Amino acid sequence: MVTPDDFVYAEGLAAEPGENELLVRTLYVSFDPAMRAFLHDRPSYIPPQPIGEVMRAGAVGQVVESRSPQLAAGDLVMGGFGWQDYAVVPAASAMKIAANHPLPDYLGVLGGIGLTAYFGLLEVAKIASGETVVVSGAAGATGSAAAQIAKLKGCRVVGIAGGPAKCRWLLEELRLDGAIDYKHEDVAARLGELCPSGINVYFDNVGGRILEAAIGRMAPKGRIALCGMISGYNDARPSPGPDNLFEMVSRRIRMEGFLTFDFASQFAEGRRDLESWVASGQLKSYVDVQEGFENIPKTFMRIFTGANTGKQVLKIADPNG
Amino acid sequence: MVTPDDFVYAEGLAAEPGENELLVRTLYVSFDPAMRAFLHDRPSYIPPQPIGEVMRAGAVGQVVESRSPQLAAGDLVMGGFGWQDYAVVPAASAMKIAANHPLPDYLGVLGGIGLTAYFGLLEVAKIASGETVVVSGAAGATGSAAAQIAKLKGCRVVGIAGGPAKCRWLLEELRLDGAIDYKHEDVAARLGELCPSGINVYFDNVGGRILEAAIGRMAPKGRIALCGMISGYNDARPSPGPDNLFEMVSRRIRMEGFLTFDFASQFAEGRRDLESWVASGQLKSYVDVQEGFENIPKTFMRIFTGANTGKQVLKIADPNG
Repeated sequence: MVTPDDFVYAEGLAAEPGENELLVRTLYVSFDPAMRAFLHDRPSYIPPQPIGEVMRAGAVGQVVESRSPQLAAGDLVMGGFGWQDYAVVPAASAMKIAANHPLPDYLGVLGGIGLTAYFGLLEVAKIASGETVVVSGAAGATGSAAAQIAKLKGCRVVGIAGGPAKCRWLLEELRLDGAIDYKHEDVAARLGELCPSGINVYFDNVGGRILEAAIGRMAPKGRIALCGMISGYNDARPSPGPDNLFEMVSRRIRMEGFLTFDFASQFAEGRRDLESWVASGQLKSYVDVQEGFENIPKTFMRIFTGANTGKQVLKIADPNG
Repeated sequence: MVTPDDFVYAEGLAAEPGENELLVRTLYVSFDPAMRAFLHDRPSYIPPQPIGEVMRAGAVGQVVESRSPQLAAGDLVMGGFGWQDYAVVPAASAMKIAANHPLPDYLGVLGGIGLTAYFGLLEVAKIASGETVVVSGAAGATGSAAAQIAKLKGCRVVGIAGGPAKCRWLLEELRLDGAIDYKHEDVAARLGELCPSGINVYFDNVGGRILEAAIGRMAPKGRIALCGMISGYNDARPSPGPDNLFEMVSRRIRMEGFLTFDFASQFAEGRRDLESWVASGQLKSYVDVQEGFENIPKTFMRIFTGANTGKQVLKIADPNG
């Protein structure tokens, strides 16, 4: 398990931006399960986090000084500014945001989180109206976005989360058709009760035993979109996988891993849909905002212990502050 | 493990065929791993084999008496005639064969086996020329057909089989680009050596540890076609599954189970291709022919112990015999 002691606080002067670079003041930092994956020293789709360098992280910031014609001081931007007050980054790596919505939302439903749920459901799993969709980690950032998108596309949606409070939130706030508390209930049995005709689409954020339970309840021709497997991210040794993959043959199940950036060519279209659903109130943004630069490592732990409901962010500063 | 003692030999008079039925003399019976699956008393895509009834099995036979205008006495036919000398079946369940090829081949590359390899590779895994394809159970019926089809489609093909004799056969007879003896070699390490750019397509006949090793070596955007999982068919309790499914996310791997009958609408096209490849010598039929009705249960065991190379059949009688 990663702990706050794995990180050190350090001070230094911000560099001067060079040609086509920006100096950005970080306003909100984002916490994502994938950040745990690149703390492992093993090959993945991005190189491991180097020890002794600034921890990488997505953020919303404000341009303080620009040496690019594309952006000006005062502009609000998104990018990988990391766990630091000020960052010098290539201007091309920062995306200007209109700021029609609260800033943390750009790290949530209007950012990578929303796009992940959107492409996972619509392009990978190809949900259809009337289908039964199960979402794990449903009270988390991606899960709560996925559950809402599946609902607004006309699916029956069952969410899985840890604890009665989160399950109540899934039913009362997200208005899901069912909720399962994996900490206190038999997930396989409850999936059987809540999905009597089987699961058409399982949007998996967790892997492990819950994935196994879902495989056992898939409907013929069901699809499983693998978004991430947070249950195993802190394990030193991998846990055994699902023992029922043979069911994928007889029921012709498709299981597919995906990364949001594979759909980059369709991001504009995705953002347009997400913005319109947020504007119409069909898609709500749920953000857990912690505060204070010194609390960054502690806040990172929250997403692994399940302390957060919705997207975990931390506020460092106000714009123009 | 199923044993010959699980079956009893019984004699009785063949029934009279009714309207639109046939009396068929069984000539060759087919042995398939899937037959083990329906000996379990659990729901699957076909109902379990009822205890006390004739064991179900595919076969080639000859019509002895026909009460259908579609078929005549003497016609050679394929169908589910079971483990019996004579069967009374609906005429619609029997398919007439032209018999341009040796009869056992109709239970192999020209039958369900060939179609399974064909649709698994071309429709499920969507192989492309130049890709690296790994086939497990490569000296078996479906595996040897799949390995040959992948070769004739221009792929680099690595086969996995049990024992040095089978591996030699894969290299010398099937002319594969590599062979791995899972009984004596470290499959994961050998896959790394033989597939330095990763596996684009894994055609899985076995599941278990070999599936896990293949997942660990998949190339980005790799596809795994799950055809069956013979390694677990005789297990009373399921074995742990692959512990590395998280790799499916970062490398965007698709794993998909399939059943050949889902492609029934394309069978004619599949048979046409298979016949033409057999005629041109690009696709060879490998059949292990045992003989004698009394040896049926013993022969069934051969496919689970890996005694067969190629398709396992048993000859009961000659046509017109």
